[in-house]
Amino acid sequence: VLSWDGTAYAGWQRQPGPPTVQSLLLRETRRLCGPDVRVVGASRTDAGVHALRQTVSVQTTSGLAPEVLLRALNASLPRDIRVIGACEAGTGFDARRCARGKRYAYLIDNGPVATPLLERYAWHIRRPLDIATMRDGLAALRGRHDFSAFRAAAGREAPPVCTVRALHVFPRKQRVIILVSADRYLHHMVRTIVGSAVDIGQGRRPAAWLGDVLRARDRTLAGMTAPARGLFLVRVVN
Amino acid sequence: VLSWDGTAYAGWQRQPGPPTVQSLLLRETRRLCGPDVRVVGASRTDAGVHALRQTVSVQTTSGLAPEVLLRALNASLPRDIRVIGACEAGTGFDARRCARGKRYAYLIDNGPVATPLLERYAWHIRRPLDIATMRDGLAALRGRHDFSAFRAAAGREAPPVCTVRALHVFPRKQRVIILVSADRYLHHMVRTIVGSAVDIGQGRRPAAWLGDVLRARDRTLAGMTAPARGLFLVRVVN
Repeated sequence: VLSWDGTAYAGWQRQPGPPTVQSLLLRETRRLCGPDVRVVGASRTDAGVHALRQTVSVQTTSGLAPEVLLRALNASLPRDIRVIGACEAGTGFDARRCARGKRYAYLIDNGPVATPLLERYAWHIRRPLDIATMRDGLAALRGRHDFSAFRAAAGREAPPVCTVRALHVFPRKQRVIILVSADRYLHHMVRTIVGSAVDIGQGRRPAAWLGDVLRARDRTLAGMTAPARGLFLVRVVN
Repeated sequence: VLSWDGTAYAGWQRQPGPPTVQSLLLRETRRLCGPDVRVVGASRTDAGVHALRQTVSVQTTSGLAPEVLLRALNASLPRDIRVIGACEAGTGFDARRCARGKRYAYLIDNGPVATPLLERYAWHIRRPLDIATMRDGLAALRGRHDFSAFRAAAGREAPPVCTVRALHVFPRKQRVIILVSADRYLHHMVRTIVGSAVDIGQGRRPAAWLGDVLRARDRTLAGMTAPARGLFLVRVVN
């Protein structure tokens, strides 16, 4: 189980170019366990997104105990990436295939002036959001739907149908947290839902608009993609 | 009233060399109000220390309304420094002389593995701290005492006597917050108290040791100075 501050990383997924969490983890695991290592993450988070608990399966023929691997990795990984737990998994465990769902949280800093200590971890929205209206609008997204309207680019993932099990808005002083739990997600789905919810919360759109957007299945109708820095992978549900 | 993330700054106080919060604020205030500006902060926080609410008096002959100054400063200051409130003060108000006390909080990340999202904002102590013993030991510091044992260098401030009005330890899951409220502070006083409290919490010293150190008035007997990144100026009491 990994936790990281995503500010410095181009997301989870290994790719050429800027460092990603998977590429650093793979490099260090190979150094410790040899070249025949497979590293699979349950969630492919975007650049700049943070993770509280990402489940990762590491497949290796090395005999290193999980606790030893945890300590060795934490000694060599940068301090903004930490292995927070490690255990032996059953044969055939694969973090991605075994994930039954994921929970994400989005943090909005909703005071008149941005909080400097949340600069890396929240989206600052100056005008107070209308929480009740946001809740009304978001209710339409609960359940099993085609979420094409909330994905980054058409045709990148196969089926656009996801089941949103929970979708909550928690105001807390001058902060607002939006929690989403779903079986799977389309690219940028949480951030587009948040951007659209903010349109409602600021009165630019009525509450019923979110359901209309969902049914139209047209990305151009939804709101902006909220910035990555406010998004946290909370946990993977197995 | 200012709030900042201290990670990038050499503290509050203006000085030659690396940027400080006062020097940036003074530069921007002069740009807006002309050269005859005086900027005084209630607390002189150290390099790397954060502030939730620092009271600052700005003296100027410019007729700018406080709200206008707030917006203009926030437009030009770096995003890790924010003016979170501004109002007209009575003639002769001086943030330092008018401060009757200050509150500080120190955050300890006390889980087996450091939380990456607290990397900039907490001191990671791996072994669980014994909160009850820390509370016992810290009780000796409440009240009016000579705090020479907890200051950075002898003779730098005039009188070493301070009144500690409150000193609390709050555990919360795998985090520990130490709250201090005093009329004034010696250099590094909170961080040396925290370093010493951690010695007690880890069982390296008995609870009664903290009172002995206080009475001996000898800095070499106290614990280490806790890292600046865990310290927050919470507010100034006027």
